[in-house]
Amino acid sequence: MAVRDADGEIAAPFLQAVSEAVEAGDGAALRALCADRHEIDIADILEMLDQDERPLFVALLGEDFDYAVLTEVDDTVREQIIEALPNEAVAEGVRDLESDDAVYILEDLEAEDQAEILARMPAVERAVLRRSLDFPEDSAGRRMQTDLIAVPPFWTVGRTIDYMRESEDLPDEFYEIIVVDEQFKPVGTVALNRLLRTKRPIPIETIMDPDVQSIRADLDQEEAARVFERYNLVSAAVVDDHDRLVGVLMFDDIVDVIQEEAEEDIRGLAGVGDEEISDTVAYTARSRFTWLFVNLATAILASGVIALFDATLQQMVALAILMPIVASMGGNAGTQTMTVAVRSLATRELAGYNIRRFATRELMVGLINGVLFAVIIGVVAATWFTNVQLGAVIAAAMIVNLFCAGLFGIAIPVGLDKMGIDPAIASTVFLTTVTDVVGFFAFLGLATVLLM
Amino acid sequence: MAVRDADGEIAAPFLQAVSEAVEAGDGAALRALCADRHEIDIADILEMLDQDERPLFVALLGEDFDYAVLTEVDDTVREQIIEALPNEAVAEGVRDLESDDAVYILEDLEAEDQAEILARMPAVERAVLRRSLDFPEDSAGRRMQTDLIAVPPFWTVGRTIDYMRESEDLPDEFYEIIVVDEQFKPVGTVALNRLLRTKRPIPIETIMDPDVQSIRADLDQEEAARVFERYNLVSAAVVDDHDRLVGVLMFDDIVDVIQEEAEEDIRGLAGVGDEEISDTVAYTARSRFTWLFVNLATAILASGVIALFDATLQQMVALAILMPIVASMGGNAGTQTMTVAVRSLATRELAGYNIRRFATRELMVGLINGVLFAVIIGVVAATWFTNVQLGAVIAAAMIVNLFCAGLFGIAIPVGLDKMGIDPAIASTVFLTTVTDVVGFFAFLGLATVLLM
Repeated sequence: MAVRDADGEIAAPFLQAVSEAVEAGDGAALRALCADRHEIDIADILEMLDQDERPLFVALLGEDFDYAVLTEVDDTVREQIIEALPNEAVAEGVRDLESDDAVYILEDLEAEDQAEILARMPAVERAVLRRSLDFPEDSAGRRMQTDLIAVPPFWTVGRTIDYMRESEDLPDEFYEIIVVDEQFKPVGTVALNRLLRTKRPIPIETIMDPDVQSIRADLDQEEAARVFERYNLVSAAVVDDHDRLVGVLMFDDIVDVIQEEAEEDIRGLAGVGDEEISDTVAYTARSRFTWLFVNLATAILASGVIALFDATLQQMVALAILMPIVASMGGNAGTQTMTVAVRSLATRELAGYNIRRFATRELMVGLINGVLFAVIIGVVAATWFTNVQLGAVIAAAMIVNLFCAGLFGIAIPVGLDKMGIDPAIASTVFLTTVTDVVGFFAFLGLATVLLM
Repeated sequence: MAVRDADGEIAAPFLQAVSEAVEAGDGAALRALCADRHEIDIADILEMLDQDERPLFVALLGEDFDYAVLTEVDDTVREQIIEALPNEAVAEGVRDLESDDAVYILEDLEAEDQAEILARMPAVERAVLRRSLDFPEDSAGRRMQTDLIAVPPFWTVGRTIDYMRESEDLPDEFYEIIVVDEQFKPVGTVALNRLLRTKRPIPIETIMDPDVQSIRADLDQEEAARVFERYNLVSAAVVDDHDRLVGVLMFDDIVDVIQEEAEEDIRGLAGVGDEEISDTVAYTARSRFTWLFVNLATAILASGVIALFDATLQQMVALAILMPIVASMGGNAGTQTMTVAVRSLATRELAGYNIRRFATRELMVGLINGVLFAVIIGVVAATWFTNVQLGAVIAAAMIVNLFCAGLFGIAIPVGLDKMGIDPAIASTVFLTTVTDVVGFFAFLGLATVLLM
C-alpha cells in the first residue's frame, strides 16, 4: 500500500487504513502498515490524525515507534502526545535517541514531567541530558549532539580508523572527527574524506585542519547558525566556558534554526506569535489579540489627530475622502524600508559600518518616490475635485510622509536593535503609528493653513 | 594585523591598510595583507571597499585571488566586479573553481560575456559548465557539483578506498559516495563513516543504503530544498531525465536556497523586490515604485468608496474621524491570517488535506476577535462622541471587517497558489484592497442607513 500519492502527500486510503487500525486498537495491523516507514512519513501521518488518535497511535506501535518522529512534528502536536502518554513510556522511548533529539523533546515539558522522565533513565544518559538542559534555551548547548569522535593528535590514521571500527557507541552520522589535546580542548578537525584518503601510518596532526571554528555552548543558536553559514560548516565543535569539548553541532539542526529564525521574523513583522497551523482556535485568537489591541490603540491615536481638524473636515469633505491615501502610501513605503532593515540586521548584513550609507540611500529613495507620487496624486486630486490648491496640498503631504516613512523605516529597527529589542517584533507598530500620525497631520494641517 | 575586531566586524585599521594598498596599486602589500585569508573575510572586505576599488583589488591580487569569494558577495557587487574585469582574467579565475561555484558566477552574466569566458576555457570544463547552464534557472542542475565519487556495487570497500586515494580530480569536500549501476543510474549511497568502519574485503552493495533520494536536475531548487529538509540530507544525487547521475547537490548550497526563499517571501509580502543592501538609489527607487503605484491605485479605489458617502460624512464628521480605525484593524487582522497561510503554503505545511481545517480556524478567530474588538471600539466611540448608536454602528462594521479579513486572508493566498502565482508576491495588495473597501463600505454604509 503506497504511503504517498503522486503529489507527495500522504495517500488518503493509507491514512484511512491507519485511522481504522488505531480506532480498532489493532496493534498488529498498525505495525504492518507503519513499522519501518521513514520517520518523516510517520510524522506527517501523526499530524493528519485526529488529536485523540495520536497518543493511541504511539501507544499501539509500542517499541516500533521511533521517538525521533516527535522532533519532526509541530510543537503543539508533540506536547499534546507527550502529555497523553505515561512518563514511563516517554522515558523508555527517549533514552534510545541521540542526545540532541532527546533534549528537543524534553526541553518544553513541564518541570515536573521532565524531572520524572529523567529520573527513570539510566544515570549516564540522565547526566548527559541534564547538562544539555542546563544551557540556556535556544543555545548551541541545547542543540548539540554529545555522541562524537575525539582523538589525540599523536594517534595515527590507522589507529583512529581501528578505534572507530571497534567503538560501539558511535553517533549515527558524522562527517568529521575532532582532534583534542590532553585537556580535551579542540585543536583541529579531520574531514572523513581526508581520513579515507590518507595512509594508515600517518599521524593525525599532520592531516588535521587546525583552523577550528569552535562554538561556545551558551551561544545563541541564531549566532551559531551565522558561523555555520559563514564558513559553510557541516559540523562544529561545541565547547564549555573552559574551552573543553562538550558536543558537536550538526548542519541539519542548523538548517532548522535558520528556517525557524526567518519564520520568526516574518511572523513578528505581521504580528503573529509562535503559533502553529495545528494550534486551537482559542490559542490563536488569544495570541493575535495582543497585537490587534496595540494596533487599536495606535489607530485611536491617529483618529485623535484627525479629530484636531474636525472643523476643517466639516468644511471640506474631500479631505476625508483623500486622507487615507496619504497614510496608506506612507505605511507601505515605510514597510519596504523597514523590512529590508530588519532582515539585514538579522543576517548581520547591516552593521555599524554601512548604516550611514543605507540610511542615505533610503532617505533619497523616500524623497524620489515622494516627489513622483506627489505629482501623480496631485494631478489626480486636482482633477477629481477640480481644485488645484487641494492637489498642491496632498502633493506636499505625500512628500513629507514618504520622506518620514524612509527616515523612521530605518530609525525604528536600528534603534530597537541598539536597545537589544528584536526589531522584527516591535517595528511595525511604531512605524504605522508614525506614518498614520504624520500622514493625517501633514495633510489636514496643510489644508487648514492653506485652504481655509 | 587583525582582520576582525572584537565584534567580529572587519577591523577599521585593516580595511584602511587594504584601501591604501589598492589606491597605491601596491600588489605586494595587498598580497601580504590578504593572501591566505578565509574567503568570507575577503568577501566582507570587498563589500566594504568603494565600488571602483573592488575590481582593482581583484586585479592586484591576481593569482592569489580565489574566485570562490565572488559566490559570497551580494549579486550587485559580483556583477559589477566581473563587468570591470577582462573576460580573460575571469575565465582563468573561474576554471579553478568547483563547477557549482563557476555556474553561480557565470549564470547571471550577459550572454555575450558568458560565451566568451566559456570559449576561453578548456573543452572538458566548458562542456561540464555548459550542461549545468542548460538547466533552467534556479533548478537543481544549476546548483549541483559535478565532481563526485561514483562506484559500482560489486567493488569492495578496499578497492573503493584505493580508488579515492589515487584519484586526482576529487571534490574538495564530500560526505558520501554514490553507487551506480552499469547505466550510471544511482542504486545506493554509502556514508563515509560507514565506509571507514567496514573491513576492506566487504562489497559495497552489502553496506550501501539502497534508499536513494535522487533529485531531478530540472527540479526547482526550492523543491530540492524541501527534500533535503525532509530527509535531513547532507548531499543528494542529481539525475537527468533518463535517471542517470549527473551531479551532486550539497547541503551548504541548500542552506543558501532555504535562506533565499524565506527572504523572498518576506520581501514579497512587504513589496520589496530582489534588491540588495548594496543596490543604488536609482535601482531601489525604481524597484519599489511599481508596488507603491499599485498600492496608490487601490488606495484611490478605497477613496472612491468613501466618496459614495460624502453626504453622510458632511452631516457627521465623527465618521471621518473613526473610519480609519475599522480599515486599519481589518488590514492587520487579515495580514496575520495571510502571513500564516503564505508561509504554510511555502513550507507545504498547508496542503489539500488541512485547508478546510485551517479555514475554519481562521474564520472562528476572525469572528471571536471581531466580537471582542467590536465591544471595545463600540464603547470607546459611544463615549468619545456621546452617541450610543454611533458605537453600535462601528461595532457592527468591526465584526464584518474582521470576519472578511479572516476569509480573504486565507482565500487570496490559497487562490493565488492554485493559479500557480506565488502568493507571497501578490497577496498583500489584494488583501488590503478588500479590507479597506469592506471596512469603509460597511462602516459608512451602516451609518448612512442607521444614523441618517
